[in-house]
Amino acid sequence: MLSKRLEDYIEKIVLLDEKAMECARERQSVLAKPPGSLGRLEEISIQLAGISGGMFYDTSKRCVIIMSADNGVFEEGVAATPQSVTYSQTVNFVRGIPGVAAIAKQFAADLIVVDVGVNADIDHPLIRNRKIRKSTWNIAKGDAMTYDEAVQAILIGIETAVEAVEDGYTLFGAGEMGIANTTTSAAVLSALTGLSAEKAAGKGAGLSDEAYKHKIHVVRSAIERNRPDAGDPIDVLAKVGGFDLAALAGVFLGCAFMKVPVVIDGFISMVSALAAARIQPLAKEYMIASHASFEHGFVHAAQALGVEPCLNLNMRLGEGSGCPIMFAVIDAACAAMRDMGTFAEAEINDEYVEELRIGDKFTV
Amino acid sequence: MLSKRLEDYIEKIVLLDEKAMECARERQSVLAKPPGSLGRLEEISIQLAGISGGMFYDTSKRCVIIMSADNGVFEEGVAATPQSVTYSQTVNFVRGIPGVAAIAKQFAADLIVVDVGVNADIDHPLIRNRKIRKSTWNIAKGDAMTYDEAVQAILIGIETAVEAVEDGYTLFGAGEMGIANTTTSAAVLSALTGLSAEKAAGKGAGLSDEAYKHKIHVVRSAIERNRPDAGDPIDVLAKVGGFDLAALAGVFLGCAFMKVPVVIDGFISMVSALAAARIQPLAKEYMIASHASFEHGFVHAAQALGVEPCLNLNMRLGEGSGCPIMFAVIDAACAAMRDMGTFAEAEINDEYVEELRIGDKFTV
Repeated sequence: MLSKRLEDYIEKIVLLDEKAMECARERQSVLAKPPGSLGRLEEISIQLAGISGGMFYDTSKRCVIIMSADNGVFEEGVAATPQSVTYSQTVNFVRGIPGVAAIAKQFAADLIVVDVGVNADIDHPLIRNRKIRKSTWNIAKGDAMTYDEAVQAILIGIETAVEAVEDGYTLFGAGEMGIANTTTSAAVLSALTGLSAEKAAGKGAGLSDEAYKHKIHVVRSAIERNRPDAGDPIDVLAKVGGFDLAALAGVFLGCAFMKVPVVIDGFISMVSALAAARIQPLAKEYMIASHASFEHGFVHAAQALGVEPCLNLNMRLGEGSGCPIMFAVIDAACAAMRDMGTFAEAEINDEYVEELRIGDKFTV
Repeated sequence: MLSKRLEDYIEKIVLLDEKAMECARERQSVLAKPPGSLGRLEEISIQLAGISGGMFYDTSKRCVIIMSADNGVFEEGVAATPQSVTYSQTVNFVRGIPGVAAIAKQFAADLIVVDVGVNADIDHPLIRNRKIRKSTWNIAKGDAMTYDEAVQAILIGIETAVEAVEDGYTLFGAGEMGIANTTTSAAVLSALTGLSAEKAAGKGAGLSDEAYKHKIHVVRSAIERNRPDAGDPIDVLAKVGGFDLAALAGVFLGCAFMKVPVVIDGFISMVSALAAARIQPLAKEYMIASHASFEHGFVHAAQALGVEPCLNLNMRLGEGSGCPIMFAVIDAACAAMRDMGTFAEAEINDEYVEELRIGDKFTV
């Protein structure tokens, strides 16, 4: 059922470069610090070596790809926010208004905003029109989309990443905008892992207790009704997911295909990453978790994928807003790898004492 | 027993500006996002408002203050690293070699390196000579220093912070260099909180199991022998601490006195912050925790102080190396506060549609 084009991408995703990782580990072992004392920063620098095949990674051109789409399940009353917010925030991304825009600007990251299914006409030079159709169908009443549409959404994600790498981007974040997509994410997480709807679903952007109960019911009954096949992640995305989730899964696959690192944001991004890793397990090697989302199901999704976030910020905004902050952590990892001295360079020998003596003539 | 000069500083530390915090909370509530969805970033922006009295905080001129000193307890064999490394790394900080130097440079932070008791002669234009004497005494055999010396070290820390604020710095990190200072930190933590030596002491930069057992014994017996008074944190610093710890506690007090935010680094920095907060509880309001150190006692010290780190990086390098990464998180908090649009600005109304129509004439 996979399209030939998608299959081609998936098959070409490869293991990290073990030799480059070994060289990176060796360099870490001679940098002037107790072995392992930079913890996750060391691990990230080694992962980047494995991804790129080189010792030093240039993170200066980076972006957050935001997949925007509406979700038919909105009509079940599972979201605290009007559906029109998907449209308005999608437009606002390029106006610099939402959280991710402010934070991305701070860390010199660009936004690549893609409309894969917003329930409104958008004609804006800075928003990529890859609309499949206006909103998925309601998963409480049937499949979200056809299998072919899921493949199409994944391909849009892959090809957005591919084009961005061709444009020179070397560091990616994966964000989304789609009112009601914590519901579809909970359904996909539950379908992929067997986790109960209670554990998978959270209160999203601020549901009442009653609406939250209803959301759990919607997630459970969508799975019972549509019977997604846990062994076929594309079937899961088609039956209980969304265009936003499927396209985001494509972004993760596309980054792995192009051998560039991609940062996972919050709950929805993490579930999409999990779906991508179920499609192609090697894709996981190119992913870097950022923050631990406050949203209920996040921790289960992260565990299922086998990644651990570096940031504890109690954030639950989505949009990719955690990614640029993680770019800074990755910058730190690259800086330590590149700019720290080795034990040999750290030795205070006669040569340096002489250098110091000369230096002393200058006051600062 | 407090010197009049120290008492003056401590008494002038005040509560945060509640009115400015209220204004900041109000602004957060009208920014275009679900309420509270930026989590810790919102809390930090509100804290900065309380510290500074203003809504928007400029973090562009920042530094890590590093207090370097040797610790007499080194002779007990409690460290995996030679004592000369305190000297060589202190010199290396200004040569840009250690981890903190590489990471600080990445985030445009300066290092202010202060010799408060390195066991070697240092004459370098970029290293501030505030040496009290060469190394403390061995806490396993008697007090680390006199009470007056502890007061002197705290004053050095305070005045280093005061001068840096006068030089225009608005964001601080508190780091240290002092071989064997995880032992003194464990002793201070144990003395201040009643925590057992087993829980307070960790493996530092890489002790063997046997050396670790001995370290626990040294911590326990130093407390039994020197009998620090838990009710007098300066007495604790004098009897089982070090010049590095006492001066660092002074940095925290000095930042609070000058109303500037100060970032806590790892275990030693956290214990110094705790000592500062025991001297003046209001000082805590000016502190921001950064990363959860891998070192054993860290979590207990953070709990005792009542702060929660934002970064999970398994780091255990010290030097202040976690502070610049936290500066980036604080930058993100400030960017969101400053640059995000409000709900009113996020509305897509007729005026904006017109603006969009005009904008459409230009392709990008």
